[in-house]
Amino acid sequence: MSGRVILVGAGPGDPELITLRGWRALQQAEVVLYDSLVDKSLLEGLRAELIFVGKRCGRHSMSQEELTELIARLAIEGKRVVRLKGGDPTVFGRAGEEALRMAELGIPFEIVPGVSSAIAAPAFAGIPVTHRGVADSFCVISAHRAADEAEVSIPPYNPRTTLVLLMALQTLGSWGRQLLAQGYPADLPMAFITAGTTKQQRVLTTTVGRAVEETRKAALESPTLAVVGHVVSLRGSLGWYEDAGAQAPAEATSSAPAEPGRGLLFASLLHVGVS
Amino acid sequence: MSGRVILVGAGPGDPELITLRGWRALQQAEVVLYDSLVDKSLLEGLRAELIFVGKRCGRHSMSQEELTELIARLAIEGKRVVRLKGGDPTVFGRAGEEALRMAELGIPFEIVPGVSSAIAAPAFAGIPVTHRGVADSFCVISAHRAADEAEVSIPPYNPRTTLVLLMALQTLGSWGRQLLAQGYPADLPMAFITAGTTKQQRVLTTTVGRAVEETRKAALESPTLAVVGHVVSLRGSLGWYEDAGAQAPAEATSSAPAEPGRGLLFASLLHVGVS
Repeated sequence: MSGRVILVGAGPGDPELITLRGWRALQQAEVVLYDSLVDKSLLEGLRAELIFVGKRCGRHSMSQEELTELIARLAIEGKRVVRLKGGDPTVFGRAGEEALRMAELGIPFEIVPGVSSAIAAPAFAGIPVTHRGVADSFCVISAHRAADEAEVSIPPYNPRTTLVLLMALQTLGSWGRQLLAQGYPADLPMAFITAGTTKQQRVLTTTVGRAVEETRKAALESPTLAVVGHVVSLRGSLGWYEDAGAQAPAEATSSAPAEPGRGLLFASLLHVGVS
Repeated sequence: MSGRVILVGAGPGDPELITLRGWRALQQAEVVLYDSLVDKSLLEGLRAELIFVGKRCGRHSMSQEELTELIARLAIEGKRVVRLKGGDPTVFGRAGEEALRMAELGIPFEIVPGVSSAIAAPAFAGIPVTHRGVADSFCVISAHRAADEAEVSIPPYNPRTTLVLLMALQTLGSWGRQLLAQGYPADLPMAFITAGTTKQQRVLTTTVGRAVEETRKAALESPTLAVVGHVVSLRGSLGWYEDAGAQAPAEATSSAPAEPGRGLLFASLLHVGVS
């Protein structure tokens, strides 16, 4: 058996935020299993068989267990399998579970980290998760909850810690109340970032006290994350991505011609490579 | 003035963990300011002027203020300036400070996130920072302290939260004591990861109670980070990077021939691109 499984983080949204290592794994893959949050331009021009394993109409097309067994079966058949996930595979990406099963079956695997949306989406919204004199730590929490899981647990308020809640909308009522109960001031700034780092990025700034009401009014859609803490107020000066014509950064800085039949990335890297 | 400043995260160590966007910014730069944690192969073959702004013999060659003004001056001269930092520029990388100064001076800037060593070094050591049923949140704290800064603040123990301490060695005595005071069990597993994701990666697993003594015996060197929490015990099954001959992953999976005068990355990307 020469099969191999590579668990690759696609990054937070902007397809150019995948790593070189992840991108190379895609070029060399024989099968790629991908889900809804992955930008389709990453899949253009690949020689691999592409298998969609994400949600359709809000339902997963297969269970995590079925997916893990499919990955294993393909590797046992001798295939070089890439499992491509939005963000980083070990940040709520279930890479640990998939890797454990491969280890159990003796299938070689690698983990290729990705840029986490927990850090990158705030950065694109002009909010550094740490900032000297303002925040010297940050906590990342998934607000998504399966029916069998315990409630989201919010740590006690620390004015120098930034809180990032991924998949923030589903249980906002519950963790929003907990913020107040845990001592977060009602006027502490908060931001909700939808589709961070993509051209559809949308940012709503509010406060802990007004968050539930304002997100309801704004009718935010997934994927949305929330940032809580004083660093949010830096956005007033640092909102670079929506300003300055940087909304389409790939086009704005690349002089690569469009090359039909190949992905944008592929073309722009080749252009850089051969010039 | 057509100058521009791009604050780029180089990633955690492995040079192939830079993003495509960051890599392209390097190819297009006219000046690159880099520091000690950046792998030199990222700088090979660049057309840019290279300026080292890191530490020499433990001392910064210039202050943060001098560095920020140098970046501004180069951009005002009309240069396309890349500031290349280890890890992610907004995770203790001082990108917010540099960006604020550019905003103040009206200099266009961008932030290109990088893979943070806080997540990637544990992943390469077989420790996912989150894992279903084990950890549903993680906190990242800098243990580095300037003389004028308050002591490291450890959050109260939560068995389902993973703690990652960056630059862990400097103040280990202080935050190690705080862990116990904040309710972390003495037998809770901990790992120290030195030079994570590089070929020099070294991992020491211990417990909260034995950490100070064992790190002293092992004479660890910087850069070292610490991971605290139950996810550390997954390393027994998931230690993929040191096992399985994956220590030199770039060579192991690439068939690109060595090409003198060009960086490894450059060569291997071209190889993928034109095949």
